[in-house]
Amino acid sequence: MAETVSYDAAMRRALDLAARGPVTGGNPQVGCVLLDASGTVVAEGWHHGAGTAHAEVDALSRVADARGLTAVVTLEPCNHTGRTGPCSEALIAAGVERVVYAVSDPGHESAGGAERLRSAGVEVIPGVLADEVTAFLHIWLTAVARHRPWVTVKWASTLDGRAAAADGTSRWITGTAARQRVHEQRAASDAILVGSGTVLADDPALTARGDGGELLPHQPLPVVVGERAVPADAALRHHPAGLLETGTRDLERVLAALDVRGIRRVYVEGGPTLASAIVAAGLADEYAVYLAPALLGGDRLAIGELGITTMAEARRLVITGVEQLGDDLLVTARPTEGN
Amino acid sequence: MAETVSYDAAMRRALDLAARGPVTGGNPQVGCVLLDASGTVVAEGWHHGAGTAHAEVDALSRVADARGLTAVVTLEPCNHTGRTGPCSEALIAAGVERVVYAVSDPGHESAGGAERLRSAGVEVIPGVLADEVTAFLHIWLTAVARHRPWVTVKWASTLDGRAAAADGTSRWITGTAARQRVHEQRAASDAILVGSGTVLADDPALTARGDGGELLPHQPLPVVVGERAVPADAALRHHPAGLLETGTRDLERVLAALDVRGIRRVYVEGGPTLASAIVAAGLADEYAVYLAPALLGGDRLAIGELGITTMAEARRLVITGVEQLGDDLLVTARPTEGN
Ligand SMILES: NC(=O)c1ccc[n+]([C@@H]2O[C@H](COP(=O)([O-])OP(=O)(O)OC[C@H]3O[C@@H](n4cnc5c(N)ncnc54)[C@H](OP(=O)(O)O)[C@@H]3O)[C@@H](O)[C@H]2O)c1
Ligand SMILES: NC(=O)c1ccc[n+]([C@@H]2O[C@H](COP(=O)([O-])OP(=O)(O)OC[C@H]3O[C@@H](n4cnc5c(N)ncnc54)[C@H](OP(=O)(O)O)[C@@H]3O)[C@@H](O)[C@H]2O)c1
Repeated sequence: MAETVSYDAAMRRALDLAARGPVTGGNPQVGCVLLDASGTVVAEGWHHGAGTAHAEVDALSRVADARGLTAVVTLEPCNHTGRTGPCSEALIAAGVERVVYAVSDPGHESAGGAERLRSAGVEVIPGVLADEVTAFLHIWLTAVARHRPWVTVKWASTLDGRAAAADGTSRWITGTAARQRVHEQRAASDAILVGSGTVLADDPALTARGDGGELLPHQPLPVVVGERAVPADAALRHHPAGLLETGTRDLERVLAALDVRGIRRVYVEGGPTLASAIVAAGLADEYAVYLAPALLGGDRLAIGELGITTMAEARRLVITGVEQLGDDLLVTARPTEGN
Repeated sequence: MAETVSYDAAMRRALDLAARGPVTGGNPQVGCVLLDASGTVVAEGWHHGAGTAHAEVDALSRVADARGLTAVVTLEPCNHTGRTGPCSEALIAAGVERVVYAVSDPGHESAGGAERLRSAGVEVIPGVLADEVTAFLHIWLTAVARHRPWVTVKWASTLDGRAAAADGTSRWITGTAARQRVHEQRAASDAILVGSGTVLADDPALTARGDGGELLPHQPLPVVVGERAVPADAALRHHPAGLLETGTRDLERVLAALDVRGIRRVYVEGGPTLASAIVAAGLADEYAVYLAPALLGGDRLAIGELGITTMAEARRLVITGVEQLGDDLLVTARPTEGN
């Protein structure tokens, strides 16, 4: 029993370490601690981002001799040779005696680590703090299990739901604090989706910038959805993360192509036609609605047609957060069960 | 100096008493304390509502002998014989030596109380805690000074600004907690405005009800704006506060007629055409926007045309409150200076 408690505490520490890693880059946030026979932490590690060592390998690199140690890791060690070798092999080679993990690896190529460890004689204890770690990895686990990225639909509108005035002007509906938050949300995404209409109308840069205008360290990939081409002189052609022109309106196909690229978090920045199509198709996992304290009237709506005819068909959400940003509100919401 | 501090404290107490009175009924909320020569409170009073004694008279009724006392009252004593006699005369007749008040009476018929008191030899000290009392009476003072009621425009919409689905169904966009708050806001209003379209489409009762469905003590007067007549069998014809059919779309005329009736607080419950017309005319003093966590799309907007063509003309508001009511949000806002 004393050991179980100590594994819980070690897993909580591993979870804290996991949170230090980036949410972007395709890989999950994973943390690992190594315990000696007395239950003392002798090393810690976490995954620092795509192309760098996995959490287990990061922790192993910090001990001279791992023989007889217990590795407590938030996710089942991978069994897959990607840009780095499989963690299961690294743990076996290092002589680790026991592996404790929270959540099974849902990846189809990378799963099987626990089995590999057992067959090499390593004791494996799964499921420690499984609920907490599952909640922590919810977005990544959902994306991997569904073979499509987690989709956050963002829009900015007035309190009466308008995204622009009658003449098309929309600068600025929201204030600087809200716009800065949008940049942060871009930086926490793997890709930004925009419709061809927005690209042709606004020629947006879609970079993630700090409040001094400087580029943030992580830049999401801009993805243009629609049949029309991006103009040769578009600002997007100079995006630091490159540019993906899809040439299609087929949303499922676009998301499947992003999944293959390891894109887990997509941020949809509109315009209204693309956002409405994603909502209508039931592909929105989360909403980031910036509401400005203003009224515009007119027909430039943030959300257009959703194919809903009667109240009973309304797309019901649950509000998960309300935040005042300068003079504006950011309302965060998710679909209710079945919506 | 000791006296000044004591007047401030007495005025703060008078303000607390004032707040016990109703916000409806045409009269301001007023409180009064009577002090003896040592600065001790010997009686308190406040205005309990239309047709009952004013605060000063209420306080005077609680002492056997008011000779030599100081009356500290939030509003300049009235000089007008309405349903009750003028307070200035009552104070003089009772032998009060000094009257301390915060804010001058802006009423054209009732003003002049201070002058009348002075001419009868009563010492008058105006302006004590003037800012606090002015803020407290803001709505009433504004309505009286402008000769039109304070107008709160309420609507309920989805996060995308829709008030109904394509087939016209709108029950229920918001949940029970939000709808209960609407009943409370009705009960805190002198009149409810609705367009003829809403009356013909929904046949609403527009009563203020408690959460058991029982009628609340105060019922606002329902006012139907528009040229079309209210049907003979409309539910509104059984409203406990009566019914005012205006037979006109002229909003200024409607508000002027309500002012004459002593109506200070108007709650506009839609529909979209009436609400938009009031906003477009710059007649909205406050907004109560109920936002349901749902999306509907389509063309049934809570706010329609406002005559705005470009962003610079947007009607800018300032959010004064955000409250979660069940699953819904209530966003309260006021126009910014000049909007
Ligand atoms: N306030 C805000 O949050 C915000 C954000 C972004 C944009 N805007 C404003 O929105 C305006 C542009 O509006 P918009 O609606 O034309 O822009 P949009 O949604 O960016 O682009 C619409 C175009 O996307 C393509 N498309 C891609 N997938 C589609 C699908 N599944 N279904 C239908 N069409 C699809 C279609 O073009 P193809 O013919 O190329 O296939 C369609 O015409 C601009 O004025 C911009 O300023 C506002
Ligand atoms: N979600 C909500 O908060 C909410 C609230 C109320 C109603 N609704 C829905 O709204 C729908 C009714 O919409 P509606 O827009 O027809 O209703 P409305 O605004 O109640 O009524 C519109 C009518 O009001 C009259 N009117 C009065 N003053 C006017 C002015 N200054 N300018 C123009 N017209 C004026 C006109 O009729 P005359 O020809 O008689 O002059 C006009 O057709 C119903 O389906 C109802 O369910 C929703």
